[in-house]
Amino acid sequence: MSALTLPVARDLADWRRLRPRHGTLGFVPTMGALHAGHLSLVRRALDENDACVVSIFVNPTQFDDPGDLAAYPKTFDDDCAMLAELGTPLVLAPTADVLYADGYNVRVSEHADAAELEGRHRPGHFDGMLTVVLKLLNIAGAHRAYFGEKDFQQLRLVRTMVEALFHPTRIVGCPTVREHDGLAMSSRNRYLSPDERRAARALPASLAAAQREIDAGTTDADLIAAAARRVLDEARGVEPDYAAVVDPDTFSPLTRLDRPAVLCVAARVGPTRLLDNVVLIPT
Amino acid sequence: MSALTLPVARDLADWRRLRPRHGTLGFVPTMGALHAGHLSLVRRALDENDACVVSIFVNPTQFDDPGDLAAYPKTFDDDCAMLAELGTPLVLAPTADVLYADGYNVRVSEHADAAELEGRHRPGHFDGMLTVVLKLLNIAGAHRAYFGEKDFQQLRLVRTMVEALFHPTRIVGCPTVREHDGLAMSSRNRYLSPDERRAARALPASLAAAQREIDAGTTDADLIAAAARRVLDEARGVEPDYAAVVDPDTFSPLTRLDRPAVLCVAARVGPTRLLDNVVLIPT
Repeated sequence: MSALTLPVARDLADWRRLRPRHGTLGFVPTMGALHAGHLSLVRRALDENDACVVSIFVNPTQFDDPGDLAAYPKTFDDDCAMLAELGTPLVLAPTADVLYADGYNVRVSEHADAAELEGRHRPGHFDGMLTVVLKLLNIAGAHRAYFGEKDFQQLRLVRTMVEALFHPTRIVGCPTVREHDGLAMSSRNRYLSPDERRAARALPASLAAAQREIDAGTTDADLIAAAARRVLDEARGVEPDYAAVVDPDTFSPLTRLDRPAVLCVAARVGPTRLLDNVVLIPT
Repeated sequence: MSALTLPVARDLADWRRLRPRHGTLGFVPTMGALHAGHLSLVRRALDENDACVVSIFVNPTQFDDPGDLAAYPKTFDDDCAMLAELGTPLVLAPTADVLYADGYNVRVSEHADAAELEGRHRPGHFDGMLTVVLKLLNIAGAHRAYFGEKDFQQLRLVRTMVEALFHPTRIVGCPTVREHDGLAMSSRNRYLSPDERRAARALPASLAAAQREIDAGTTDADLIAAAARRVLDEARGVEPDYAAVVDPDTFSPLTRLDRPAVLCVAARVGPTRLLDNVVLIPT
């Protein structure tokens, strides 16, 4: 099936026609610029359900930086071609007019954990993300929705929202897919110049350094975070935002690694902001 | 069927057992203290659907006044007895622990029209109302949900939320049911002393005065609102909050009655706050 014949819904009327009437439906929300990480979500959704819908929508309300929004890669035809190779996923590609007919006056927000980490660095980001995810979950009406663990706080907040609002869709988290050198797949990786691409290895290297600290017997969370931070600080062309060992449910910093935690790192590599994280298990 | 044998779900596991598997489901959300207005919603829901569920939950997050919450009438056994007479509605009566396991950290809000009228007088009221309605709509999973027109701004904001979030439940507005002397049915009417009950007639009388002003040819919205306000001002024991001729979609004040509008009035009668409204059609 070629990209041109992949079934694409641009609005609700299209979607009502395309939407499968029977069986289970898996849903993969994306902002396009698809990479192997997205494709792993789609494969899993196709595996676990009778049908799969992938949404492609660059959501303006979750960009705190207008430059980042303007530059965000739009590769719709390539995206459809990649999806067409996986089988027959349906594509939901609504316009902003359709999704925000209300002028973004109706908003969902999380008033505790969303203020940490990314919430501190990107004001309004999580309100925009949660609001569009809820709209898309309602439109898709899927049984399961698939999110990558790379955006750890996003995944956790989506779960929190779905549980708090008793939304019927089940949220499935999927492991981060990495390049051969360990860099987490991200649509923003394509912004990186060759030099920046090399520098970006500092992110997965920082996670590995923290793990070595734990393997050496350290349980002090500040020391573990500092080991990660040091790798980011020392990498040329990398400006770290944070390296934090946090509770995986609340994102609040831990003092001691006496239970499972997550190390989250964020850094700018040139103009591009990248995230990564790893689950830390006490030894 | 007696009240004792009416099927009541206290939590999600109960509701999963009770919830009809086939056919259409109508949903009537209430805070209990049922009156003929509620019963008209239930009758309509039973008429238009194969089954009907009524929720009874006094939602703490929509009370701006703790005294009002503490005093709110709890008449669960009477409510069930009234419902049992209508047929076999299911009852969903969750506890606050179940509905607010998230600590009310996840919230839905409307950032434009919710600031008008009641929003001005009851800070936080509409956030609490919208959030609980969305939770209950998701739990109920009904085809249609029924709301009274007496709480005009509530009905309009629920419609706005459901449209903005693409929620699949259809919202049905139902006419206000009135006592024989015109007072709009409200759970709070039972607070009124005999003297206050007589004074409360000023609310429907204020709507009638505005209508007479229109019948006499007035199109100036301020004059129409003033006619209503005068009736409230002159009534002994009545303290008006507002009498406003507004756009039925945005609740912003109109200057001229050149299209359908709504006259909304709110007043305290003794300690009890009452609302009423009427649609105004230009002659």
